[in-house]
Amino acid sequence: MTKTEKGSGSTSITTPTDREIRIDRVFNAPRDRVWEALTKPELVAQWWGRGNKLVIEKMEVERGGHWRFVEHSPQGVHGFEGRYSEVTPKERIVQTFEWDGMPGHVALDTATLEDLGDGRTRLVTVSVFHTTEDRDGMLSSGMEDGLNQSYAALDKLLEETR
Amino acid sequence: MTKTEKGSGSTSITTPTDREIRIDRVFNAPRDRVWEALTKPELVAQWWGRGNKLVIEKMEVERGGHWRFVEHSPQGVHGFEGRYSEVTPKERIVQTFEWDGMPGHVALDTATLEDLGDGRTRLVTVSVFHTTEDRDGMLSSGMEDGLNQSYAALDKLLEETR
Repeated sequence: MTKTEKGSGSTSITTPTDREIRIDRVFNAPRDRVWEALTKPELVAQWWGRGNKLVIEKMEVERGGHWRFVEHSPQGVHGFEGRYSEVTPKERIVQTFEWDGMPGHVALDTATLEDLGDGRTRLVTVSVFHTTEDRDGMLSSGMEDGLNQSYAALDKLLEETR
Repeated sequence: MTKTEKGSGSTSITTPTDREIRIDRVFNAPRDRVWEALTKPELVAQWWGRGNKLVIEKMEVERGGHWRFVEHSPQGVHGFEGRYSEVTPKERIVQTFEWDGMPGHVALDTATLEDLGDGRTRLVTVSVFHTTEDRDGMLSSGMEDGLNQSYAALDKLLEETR
């Protein structure tokens, strides 16, 4: 559920089908600025890693481009990578997502930005997995905590750069 | 259907589920040699491209390793890439498959080699797609002809290196 009062909302994580995860979150910033925070490497580096050092090895935000991030956390070094399938400025990014620890287990993430008309933006991300096991593996990986930490860092970035 | 008489068989392509393609083919060579033809870059370069020039930019045959092939055909240049999820020598390779022309549309291919005990080897490849549309796109892409050409070239290579 997202809150109805003005402000950023809480994160809703649901499972529309047995191979999908849907993440719904409202950010207290106009769509242009949320889009920039999602697509400019120097901004992504400030929130994606949840406070951990994030090395953006590659981030070619265009159809067919690749991305690869390496997060340096106290628990170790984790690489993530994928490829952009669709980039529609300010509206939608479709990209694959793969963690080095589970190579070959690839999710396809569709992120959609909705201008709420009151200075806020709703970001909905639907991830499709090849199998239910892959989907459940993601859900049980500590994803929810990590996501909340990332989105809290993104809230902070959007607040600071207002 | 594969032929029952000794020799390489015809290629069977079936759709076990609405997101899968299953390819079944018998090769007239022992499993060790089929495994080599599938995993040694200098051999793959001789059959995968169906007679076209194939540039193997990357082929790290191990869990987590990446591969990238570029085929130079009279119709144009086509890149393909993916990542190895599992490599069990002589038995199984699990890897992702993505064509540059459809970035983000990733299949997970599981190739299993079965020693038929008579000097022949059965190669079964099951590809799982994220959606039925992706699967059907692959089926209608001229995949069957391309596959038959590749496997004919592999037959020839296995015959020559006997």
